[in-house]
Amino acid sequence: MPLSREALAELADALPDGVVVTDPDLVEKYRWDRSQDPRTGTPAAVVRAEDAGQVQTAVRWAAAHRVPVVPRGAGSGLSGGSSAVDEGIVLSLERMAEIEIDTSCQVAVVEPGALNAQVKAAAAEHGLWYPPDPSSYEFCSIGGNVATNAGGLCCVKYGVTTDYVLGLDVVLADGTLVQLGGKRIKDVAGLSLMKLFVGSEGTLGVVTRVLLRLVPAQAARSTLVASFATPTVAAEAVVAIRSRLRPSMLELMDQASIRAVEAHRPMGLDLEAGALMVAQSDAPGAARTEEIALMEKACVDAGALEVFVTDDADEGEQFVQARRMVIPAVEQIGALMLEDVGVPVPRLPELLATVAEIAERLDLAIPVIAHAGDGNTHPLIVVPRDDEAARLRAVQAFDEIMYAAIRLGGTITGEHGVGRTKKAALPDQLGPEVIDLTRRVKAALDPDGILNPGAIL
Amino acid sequence: MPLSREALAELADALPDGVVVTDPDLVEKYRWDRSQDPRTGTPAAVVRAEDAGQVQTAVRWAAAHRVPVVPRGAGSGLSGGSSAVDEGIVLSLERMAEIEIDTSCQVAVVEPGALNAQVKAAAAEHGLWYPPDPSSYEFCSIGGNVATNAGGLCCVKYGVTTDYVLGLDVVLADGTLVQLGGKRIKDVAGLSLMKLFVGSEGTLGVVTRVLLRLVPAQAARSTLVASFATPTVAAEAVVAIRSRLRPSMLELMDQASIRAVEAHRPMGLDLEAGALMVAQSDAPGAARTEEIALMEKACVDAGALEVFVTDDADEGEQFVQARRMVIPAVEQIGALMLEDVGVPVPRLPELLATVAEIAERLDLAIPVIAHAGDGNTHPLIVVPRDDEAARLRAVQAFDEIMYAAIRLGGTITGEHGVGRTKKAALPDQLGPEVIDLTRRVKAALDPDGILNPGAIL
Repeated sequence: MPLSREALAELADALPDGVVVTDPDLVEKYRWDRSQDPRTGTPAAVVRAEDAGQVQTAVRWAAAHRVPVVPRGAGSGLSGGSSAVDEGIVLSLERMAEIEIDTSCQVAVVEPGALNAQVKAAAAEHGLWYPPDPSSYEFCSIGGNVATNAGGLCCVKYGVTTDYVLGLDVVLADGTLVQLGGKRIKDVAGLSLMKLFVGSEGTLGVVTRVLLRLVPAQAARSTLVASFATPTVAAEAVVAIRSRLRPSMLELMDQASIRAVEAHRPMGLDLEAGALMVAQSDAPGAARTEEIALMEKACVDAGALEVFVTDDADEGEQFVQARRMVIPAVEQIGALMLEDVGVPVPRLPELLATVAEIAERLDLAIPVIAHAGDGNTHPLIVVPRDDEAARLRAVQAFDEIMYAAIRLGGTITGEHGVGRTKKAALPDQLGPEVIDLTRRVKAALDPDGILNPGAIL
Repeated sequence: MPLSREALAELADALPDGVVVTDPDLVEKYRWDRSQDPRTGTPAAVVRAEDAGQVQTAVRWAAAHRVPVVPRGAGSGLSGGSSAVDEGIVLSLERMAEIEIDTSCQVAVVEPGALNAQVKAAAAEHGLWYPPDPSSYEFCSIGGNVATNAGGLCCVKYGVTTDYVLGLDVVLADGTLVQLGGKRIKDVAGLSLMKLFVGSEGTLGVVTRVLLRLVPAQAARSTLVASFATPTVAAEAVVAIRSRLRPSMLELMDQASIRAVEAHRPMGLDLEAGALMVAQSDAPGAARTEEIALMEKACVDAGALEVFVTDDADEGEQFVQARRMVIPAVEQIGALMLEDVGVPVPRLPELLATVAEIAERLDLAIPVIAHAGDGNTHPLIVVPRDDEAARLRAVQAFDEIMYAAIRLGGTITGEHGVGRTKKAALPDQLGPEVIDLTRRVKAALDPDGILNPGAIL
């Protein structure tokens, strides 16, 4: 049922001028997330909240009128978790972006619209560090990071978003604001509700404030770059390294990724290498040299073609930048369907071999990058523009890769979230009992189903 | 309503001989946990399950007859979380104690009755380590650790139980078995239900299998022992250390604790010291010496009376043993009411000063030990035997300490759980909205309230 003009006027009247937006051109900017999901709807309005009170007002209004609410941070989501829905509102948190650093508690108090990079920068001013680092860290928001329990490159040693969340303010489906957790490090008083909201993709509540644990600034890093004949051989080196070590970065990119980066911005990467490993150690003092040496040996033993090591931070950063540049570089070739499957680390070689087989059989380009040390891979399915048959094959590949991960004891999403683009496969990973349990929790917290309907479930 | 003989016979018939126990002498052994809560009830039977199927059978029976189920691991809980309730059953998991180490995935597959120390030992056989180390690690079970999200001494650097749980098998209130998580390290597919069960104290389901993440064996440790004039001064040294470093252990014990240990088992500790810090560094190579030196400087700057450093593992372990021995040593003096409050680290000096004030005013002995690096303290309220007036003052002190922690932005329980002994104070920490949210989640998962009724809520 379309939203009545009266209902919309009621919302606009309840909030300051400029908060509620219905101008189609402006609304258009809040419809899509980075998944560019073709099923994305058109919202009746966008609410650009300035504080938690306005979020409460909007959610209370939505509850009264049974209007879907799609919370939105920076719109950088990759699974359609913040794609707009028809006749709903988009609740944008971009204007709530304050950051306060409590140095004595080593905690960042952050509004959800603040970007990950801004939190890192604010912490760095005090010699502190917020580790989680999605590749999109320069343009993804902390609210979205919490919503998806985002990961990144340093997770292999430093964990993911949930490991740093000490407190959350959340507006529930009826507009109630709850405060969970606090600046204490250990706290087991009551159920772990805070952890439940992390990774809930806006389906259980709207996060309006986050307390993030900070750690001392990262130590100096050394970088190892190794080339291999095939991604499978490189993955075997990863398995060997991870069976003994927990380096601060352990990434892979395959030949197609390397070539895409070189075509986009030439850096002198080895175009003949079947795969490149980019690894770092930030172990203190001499232990760093030792850890790098152990990794080098593992690479050589696995059959690396070449191994290069540098203690120079800038030089190392160039290789990390190359790794981060893969997605924008591949986007030059065609539209992307970005996978995010993960498996137990020892199954990584099998997963990569399966992705290669699928690409070959379906005649698709599927460059692969991986947070390999965590078993988390991003096959980048290239969808040639204006080729409907190829698009359908890409959809098939997207599904086949998810089911391959499930068969290998893995997951359909390691860090991007289920959103709307992966929900069809979720029951096959979780099974009917867990889906039922999920529905019960969802119904308990959002009985009318107004919060981000269509995401996850 | 008392359980009918027919209902009990039905349960016994559904399970193998010896699983269902009703002999009063044997039942008595399963009534109490270590809190020795005087409100502990008498169960109608104890079910000593041998596998997940038997757990399902017992829970299905309990659901059909609306019988309370108190899950129980090793009975070492300190908050009455596994105290029996009248007319209920105790569901003991002690017979389910298998441990399997998957070295390639670095995962321990553990049944809930396995002891923490047994998991550590099994991992160590493969050069691996399961870090969480409650002081009771030699006699507490993994199931109990998951139920309380247990901590320990190494948490200041290595985190708590939830940080190591990769997967859980859980029997829900209707007897359904769900499998959550798996051997993959990163997984954001669906809601974080697994994290919700960790710390739920048996109120949402019965854990029948745990997948625990293991890490490479801990490196060599150096130990620092520093004495201070007062616990407050020692706490200031802790704050200074934690503002820059994350040592692998950072414990405090006050004068009364030191004297109790010396009286119980003389070790040559300084009886005149107002407080003792026991800290360790396991940083690799030369970084260890450096970290210890920085801690030593922080202690000296804060006004330490004496600082002692040793790289000898056995010598260092003696001081850690002294710290671990405080609880049994104080138990020689009288019955204990064991507190577990936590505050933001910078508030630690205030908390310790407040505890001292309460002890003085209420004329009670309250030795204090602390996982100081996490702001988590254990005031040990000594309850003189056969002194009813003192017992009432002890109850008052127990409450006052919890409320002091809340006032300081802290928690009434950092690692022991709410159980039955702390639930009265929980609403004052969480507030009515969070309590309501807790009730909704509880009702969604256990609509008839058969799972550990009276714990947490």
